[in-house]
Amino acid sequence: QILEASLPILIVILSFLSPKEDQNLLLAAAYVSDAQYNRNIPFETSPQAIRLYYFYNHWTMQVAIYFFICVDLSLALFEEPALFPLPFLATSLAEVLCLMAFFGRLVHFAKVTPQMVFWKDTKNICIMVTIVLTLIDLIICGSLEAVNIHSVRWSRALRPVFLINFPESRQIRRTFRSIRNTLPDILYVFLLFMFSVLIFSLMALKLFGDRGLKTVEGLPYFTNILDIVFELYVLVTTANSPDVMMPAYNFNWWYSLYFITYIIINTYIFMSVFLAVVYNNYRKHLKNEIRKLAYLKRHKMIEAFNILKVQVGTEFVVMEAQWRRLAKVVAPHISSPHLELLLRISDEGQKGHVDKVNFLRLPDLLNIQVVTINVKRHPLEDWMPRVYQSSASLLVQRIVRHRIFVWVYDVIILINAIFIALDEKNPFISHAEWLFLSLYIIEILLKLYTYEPRAYFGRKQFWNCQQILDIVLILRILRLLRIIVSIQRFRVIVTTLINIGPTILTFGGLVLVVYYVFAIIGMEAFRGKVRFSDPNFTSPDALVCGNPALKDSAFARDRYCKNNFNDLASSFIVLMELTVVNQCLLLLAGGFALVTHQAAKLYFIGFHIVVVILIVNIFIAFILEAFFVAYSLEKSEVETAIEKKIQELGVGIQEEEMQDGKLIDNVDAKDSGFSGDDGDNKRKDLKGLYFRIASKKYRTVDALLQQMFESEIAPEEEGPSLDEILNFSPGDMYPKNPNFENSA
Amino acid sequence: QILEASLPILIVILSFLSPKEDQNLLLAAAYVSDAQYNRNIPFETSPQAIRLYYFYNHWTMQVAIYFFICVDLSLALFEEPALFPLPFLATSLAEVLCLMAFFGRLVHFAKVTPQMVFWKDTKNICIMVTIVLTLIDLIICGSLEAVNIHSVRWSRALRPVFLINFPESRQIRRTFRSIRNTLPDILYVFLLFMFSVLIFSLMALKLFGDRGLKTVEGLPYFTNILDIVFELYVLVTTANSPDVMMPAYNFNWWYSLYFITYIIINTYIFMSVFLAVVYNNYRKHLKNEIRKLAYLKRHKMIEAFNILKVQVGTEFVVMEAQWRRLAKVVAPHISSPHLELLLRISDEGQKGHVDKVNFLRLPDLLNIQVVTINVKRHPLEDWMPRVYQSSASLLVQRIVRHRIFVWVYDVIILINAIFIALDEKNPFISHAEWLFLSLYIIEILLKLYTYEPRAYFGRKQFWNCQQILDIVLILRILRLLRIIVSIQRFRVIVTTLINIGPTILTFGGLVLVVYYVFAIIGMEAFRGKVRFSDPNFTSPDALVCGNPALKDSAFARDRYCKNNFNDLASSFIVLMELTVVNQCLLLLAGGFALVTHQAAKLYFIGFHIVVVILIVNIFIAFILEAFFVAYSLEKSEVETAIEKKIQELGVGIQEEEMQDGKLIDNVDAKDSGFSGDDGDNKRKDLKGLYFRIASKKYRTVDALLQQMFESEIAPEEEGPSLDEILNFSPGDMYPKNPNFENSA
Repeated sequence: QILEASLPILIVILSFLSPKEDQNLLLAAAYVSDAQYNRNIPFETSPQAIRLYYFYNHWTMQVAIYFFICVDLSLALFEEPALFPLPFLATSLAEVLCLMAFFGRLVHFAKVTPQMVFWKDTKNICIMVTIVLTLIDLIICGSLEAVNIHSVRWSRALRPVFLINFPESRQIRRTFRSIRNTLPDILYVFLLFMFSVLIFSLMALKLFGDRGLKTVEGLPYFTNILDIVFELYVLVTTANSPDVMMPAYNFNWWYSLYFITYIIINTYIFMSVFLAVVYNNYRKHLKNEIRKLAYLKRHKMIEAFNILKVQVGTEFVVMEAQWRRLAKVVAPHISSPHLELLLRISDEGQKGHVDKVNFLRLPDLLNIQVVTINVKRHPLEDWMPRVYQSSASLLVQRIVRHRIFVWVYDVIILINAIFIALDEKNPFISHAEWLFLSLYIIEILLKLYTYEPRAYFGRKQFWNCQQILDIVLILRILRLLRIIVSIQRFRVIVTTLINIGPTILTFGGLVLVVYYVFAIIGMEAFRGKVRFSDPNFTSPDALVCGNPALKDSAFARDRYCKNNFNDLASSFIVLMELTVVNQCLLLLAGGFALVTHQAAKLYFIGFHIVVVILIVNIFIAFILEAFFVAYSLEKSEVETAIEKKIQELGVGIQEEEMQDGKLIDNVDAKDSGFSGDDGDNKRKDLKGLYFRIASKKYRTVDALLQQMFESEIAPEEEGPSLDEILNFSPGDMYPKNPNFENSA
Repeated sequence: QILEASLPILIVILSFLSPKEDQNLLLAAAYVSDAQYNRNIPFETSPQAIRLYYFYNHWTMQVAIYFFICVDLSLALFEEPALFPLPFLATSLAEVLCLMAFFGRLVHFAKVTPQMVFWKDTKNICIMVTIVLTLIDLIICGSLEAVNIHSVRWSRALRPVFLINFPESRQIRRTFRSIRNTLPDILYVFLLFMFSVLIFSLMALKLFGDRGLKTVEGLPYFTNILDIVFELYVLVTTANSPDVMMPAYNFNWWYSLYFITYIIINTYIFMSVFLAVVYNNYRKHLKNEIRKLAYLKRHKMIEAFNILKVQVGTEFVVMEAQWRRLAKVVAPHISSPHLELLLRISDEGQKGHVDKVNFLRLPDLLNIQVVTINVKRHPLEDWMPRVYQSSASLLVQRIVRHRIFVWVYDVIILINAIFIALDEKNPFISHAEWLFLSLYIIEILLKLYTYEPRAYFGRKQFWNCQQILDIVLILRILRLLRIIVSIQRFRVIVTTLINIGPTILTFGGLVLVVYYVFAIIGMEAFRGKVRFSDPNFTSPDALVCGNPALKDSAFARDRYCKNNFNDLASSFIVLMELTVVNQCLLLLAGGFALVTHQAAKLYFIGFHIVVVILIVNIFIAFILEAFFVAYSLEKSEVETAIEKKIQELGVGIQEEEMQDGKLIDNVDAKDSGFSGDDGDNKRKDLKGLYFRIASKKYRTVDALLQQMFESEIAPEEEGPSLDEILNFSPGDMYPKNPNFENSA
C-alpha cells in the first residue's frame, strides 16, 4: 500500500531529469488516474505530491526565485567598488536573504524528489556548496570589515552558479554542456594554434630582433619573446594590424610577406578551424539532445499507456472515461469543449476508446493552442448602426481596407525618413514634421473607425501598436521595417531572424554569467586604477585618467578613461568592447598593464579566448544552424501527423489566416464543411473553437528538428531502453557509412 | 566517310566542356580504336585531331601560356606608376606580344574545336573582346603619349580576364561561378543589412545630432547623415570600436545600449547571416558540380562502351584485344606490365573480355598510380660489406632506427627552440648554437649511414629534406612541427590543413584577380597623393607623407605613409591590410579622403564588400566544408569498388605502408599470398609492380565527395540524359522532404 502510494511521487519527480514535462506529468497522472478508476476514489484526493509538484511549478514561485537571483546578482552594483554605494551590512543582509530563499527552494525541491535522485544531481550539490562557501566568505569578510581590513570578496564570482543551476535555466545549462563537450576538440586546435604562434614568434625574434627597429612610440620593436607572443596573439584578433607590421614594412618591403603568411595561417585558417570545430560539435550535440528528448518522450508515453491499457478485441486501448480522467489530472483547467475537441482527434471512429498511436500523441495535442473565434462587431455599429452603415461610411471603410491605402502610408513613411535624414535646422522641414505627425494621427483614427478596436490593438497586430508608439519620435523609423516585411524575398531572412530572437536571450544569459565572473575579477584587480573625470574638465589629472603612469599613453590620448573597472556597469561595457575586440583590446591591455602590472595582459587574453573563441563561435554556429535549417525547409512542408489530422477534420486554423483579414470567410467555409456525426448540442459547444496551428515559419530550430526526428520513428517503435537513452552521446551520431547527402 | 572521320574530333573536343578529361579521351579513343579494329588501319594513322589535341595539352604549351599571362599581369610593375619604370614603348611592345600569344592559343583552340562549340563558349568571346579592347586602348594611349598627354590606361584592369578565361583555370572559374550563384541571395541580405544600417543612422542623428558632442579630434559628432552611415558601416567591421562610441558614452552611460544593440544586430547577426548564405550556396554549388561531373563521366563511359561492345553469350562485353588497343590510344606511354595489371583487375575471370561494370571503371583505374617496388641495398654495403655488416656498425644502425633516437632529437630541437627564445646576447647561448648545429650534422650523417641515400632524400621523406634545410636558421624552428604530427590527436587537424593547401592556391588566384583590378583602379585614383620618405629622415614634409592635407591626421601620426598606391606592390599591401580590416580601414579611408575627395571612402567600402563579405566568407566556407567532411569521415572507411578489388587481388599497397619502414615485410607477405593462376612468366612481369592506393587521409574534399556520390549511383544506372546533366542547377539539390540527418 505504501509502495503504491509513493509510486506517483517517484514518477512525478522523474520529470526533473528531463526538460519537457508534459509526458512526465502524463505518466504520473496515468498512475493516479488508474488508482482512482480502479478504487473509485474521488478526484479531489489526488496525492499530496501532485499538489506539491504544482506548487513548486507555480508561476509565483518561479517569479520569486528569479527575483532573488536578480537581487543577488545586482548586489555587485551596491558593493564596493559600487555604482550606488550601500553599507556593507545592508548588502550582506540582502545576500543572506537571497541565500535563504535559494535554500528554501532547494528544500522544497528535495521534498518532491526521491532522496536518491536528489543527491545524485550535481546541480543540487553545486547550489549547496555555493551557499556554504558564500556564507563562509561573508562571515570572514564581515569580521575583517569590523576591524576595518579590506579583503577580497571572492565568493561574488560564484553568484552566477545560482542562475545556471536552478532547473528553470535549462537552455543555459544546455549551452554550457555544449561548450563542455566542445572543449577537448577545441583544446587540440588551440594547442596547435598556440604552437604556430610560438613558432612565428621565434621566427620574428630571429628576423627582427637585431635590426634595431623602433615602434611608433619609439620603443624597441620585437626584441622580447613574451612581447612578441602577445603582439602576435593580438594580431590574430586583427586589433593591431597593420601597426604591428609597419616598422618592419617601413624597413623592408619583403618583411610584409612574413606578416601576410602569419595572417593567412593564424587569423584566417585557424579562426575558421575554431568555428568548424565549434559548429560541428554544436550540431552533433543539438541532434543528440533532440534524439534523447524524442526517445524519452516516447518511452514515458508507452509506460503510461501500459498502465492504463485494457484489451478490446485484438488490440490494447485506453477507454474514454479513463482518458478523460487522465486529461483532467494533467490539465485541470481545461474547458469541457476543449476536452471534447481533443477527444474528437484522439478517438477517430467515435468508438469510445483511444488506441495506442493516438494515445502517444497526447502531449503534442495538449500543446496545441486552442482558440475561440468570435466575429466581433464594431462598437460604432452597435451604437449608431445607420450612420456606420451609410454609403459614405462604407466607402471610407473600403478605402482604409484597400491595399493602396497601406502603400500610400508606406510612401509617406519613406518620405518622412528622408526628411529626418536631411538637415533639421531648415524651418520648412521642421514644419513638415508636424504635417507627418498629423497624417499618422489621421491614419490611426481611420483604422480605429474601420476595424474592431480590440482586433486593432490585438497581440498579433504588431504594426498597429507600433503606430501608437510612433509618436515617440525614434521608433517611428522602425515602421520602415513594415515595407521590408511586405517583400516576399526578404521573408525567409526576416522570419528566421525573428525566430532566433528568443534563443538569443539564452545566449544573453550565458554571456551574463561569463561577464559577471570576469567583471568581479576585473573589479578586484583593477578598481580605482583609472579614473574618469568630466570630459570638459581638462585638468592635467583628468588627461591622464587620474593615474600618472598613463601619461602620453595611447589609452589616455584616445580618452579611454571611462573604460574602467570601477563599478559593475563600467566593467560590463569594457568587457563588451573587448568582445568586439579591435584596437580596444590593445589599448586597454596596454593601459591597464601600465597602471598595474604586465601580467594584466593575461586577463585580457584569457577573456578573449573564453568569449571570442568559444562563446562568439557558438553564437555564430547557432545562427548558421538556424539559417541552414530555414533554407533546407524553404521548399518543403513539415507537417506532423496531428496537424494533418486536424486539417482533415477541419477543426484547425492556420496562424497565417488569423493574421490576415480573411478570417471570417474561412471560419464560415470550415463551419459548413463540419461533419455532422454528433448531436446538435455537441456541435454548439465546438462552434468557434479551433486548434491554432502555429505557422511553420515561426518555429524554432529545435522544434523543427524534433518534429522531423519524431516523424522518422515508426509509430510502433518502442525505442531503446531508458538507460541507453540517458547515455546517448554525440559521438554515436555519425552514421558508420556517411552518404553524399549528409556528409557535407 | 567524312562524317565518320570528324566524329572523333567532335568528341575529343567535347572534353573542353567538362573538367575531367580522362573519360572524354576514352570516348574519343573508343571511336578511333573501333575504326582501326574494323578496318585494320594501323595504329599510327590516328587522326590529326588527336595529335593536335595532344599538342594543345602538351605541358610546354601550358607553361608558355602561363608565362605570357604572368608577363602580362606583371607589366603593371613597369608601367607608370611604376616600381621599376620602363619606357612606354617597351611595355606596350611586351603587351602586344602577350596579346599575340593569347590570340595564337585561341586560334589553336579553335582548330581543335567544332565551330558551333567554339562560338557558343563565352570564355572565348571574353578573350577576344578583351584583346580588341586592349589594342584599342593601347593605340589611343600611344598616340596621346606621343603628344605628351597622360591618359587613363583603363584596359589594364581587364588583364585578369586572361587568367580567368583560359581553360586551364577551371578552379578559379568555378569559384567565380559559385560567387555568381551566391549573388542574388547575398544581395537580399545585403539590402536588409544596409536598411538596418540606415535606420540606425537615422536614429543616431536624432539621438546624438543635437547634443553638440565632439570627437577626440574635436570635430562635430554624428551631425551629418552620410558621415554617420560611413561610421556605422565601419563599426560593422569593428574598425572604429569603441572610438565611435566614446563621445556618446562619456556623455551618458545609457547611450552605450544603442551601440550594443547595433553591434549585436549588425556585426554579429548580419555578418553570420552573410556567412550562412555564402556557405549554404557554396555547399549546394559544390554538390551540384560533383553530381554533374559524376553523371557526365558515367554518360561518356556508357557511350564509349556502346561503341566497342560485342555480344558474348547473353551479355555485352568488350573484347580483350579491343580493350588493349583502347588503353594504348588513351595512354600511349603505359608499360606492358602495367597494362597487364590493369587487365588483371578489369577481366576478373581471365575470360578474354571485359564486362560493362569493369569497363566503366577504366578512367579511375588509369588514375591510380602504379609503383615498382625494389628493395635497394645501401651503397656502403656493396662497397665494403664486411665493415658495414660488422656488429658495431649494426649496433649503430639499430640505434638510429630506434624510436628513442627520434625522441632524443625531438627533445634537442625543443631545447634549441627555448634557447632561441632566450636572449641571444648571452655568450653561453651563442656558443650553444654551434653545439646544436654539430648535433644536427651528426644526425644527418648517421641517417645517411643507416638508410639508403635515395630513400633518405626521397620525395616523401619530407622531414629528412627538412633537416638539410635546417641549417638555414629560420626553418629549423619548423622542425618542431614534426613533434606535433607524431601526436595522434593532432592528425585529423594537420592532415586536413595539408589537404586544403592546394585549393588555397585557387583562392590565391581569385584574390589576385580582385586585388589586381582594385590595385589598378586605386593607382589611377590615388597615385602620388601620399609619399613615403625614409623613417629616420624627419623633415616636416616626410612627417605629413609629402602632402600638407595630412597635417595632424591620424594617418600621418601613425606613420602610415608607406601605405600608398604609388606602385603595384604597395597597392597590394594596402589591399591586404584592408582585407584584415581593422583600424586601418578607417585610417586609410580617412587619410585618402583628406588628400583627394570624400568619395574616396566609397572605394574602401566597395573593396570591403567584395573582399570581406564575399571572398573571405567563401574562404571560410571552404575551410568549414573541408573540416566537416574530415570529421564526418573520421570514423568511417570510404573505399571505392576498385580499391576493394585491388586489395582482394593483393596487388595494391597502401600509401601509409610505403612511408613507414614496414615496406619490405609487407611486400614479402603479399607476394607469397599471390594467387598462382597465371604462368611463371606473367608473374615475373608483375613482381614488384603494385597499385599505390593513396591514403584516404590525404584526399581532397572534392575527390571524397565524388567517390561517395559515385558509390551511390547503381553500377547499371545510366543516369539522366546529357541535356539534363548539363542543366543541373544547385536549386534541385535539396530533397523535397528533408530528413533529420541531412537537414542540419
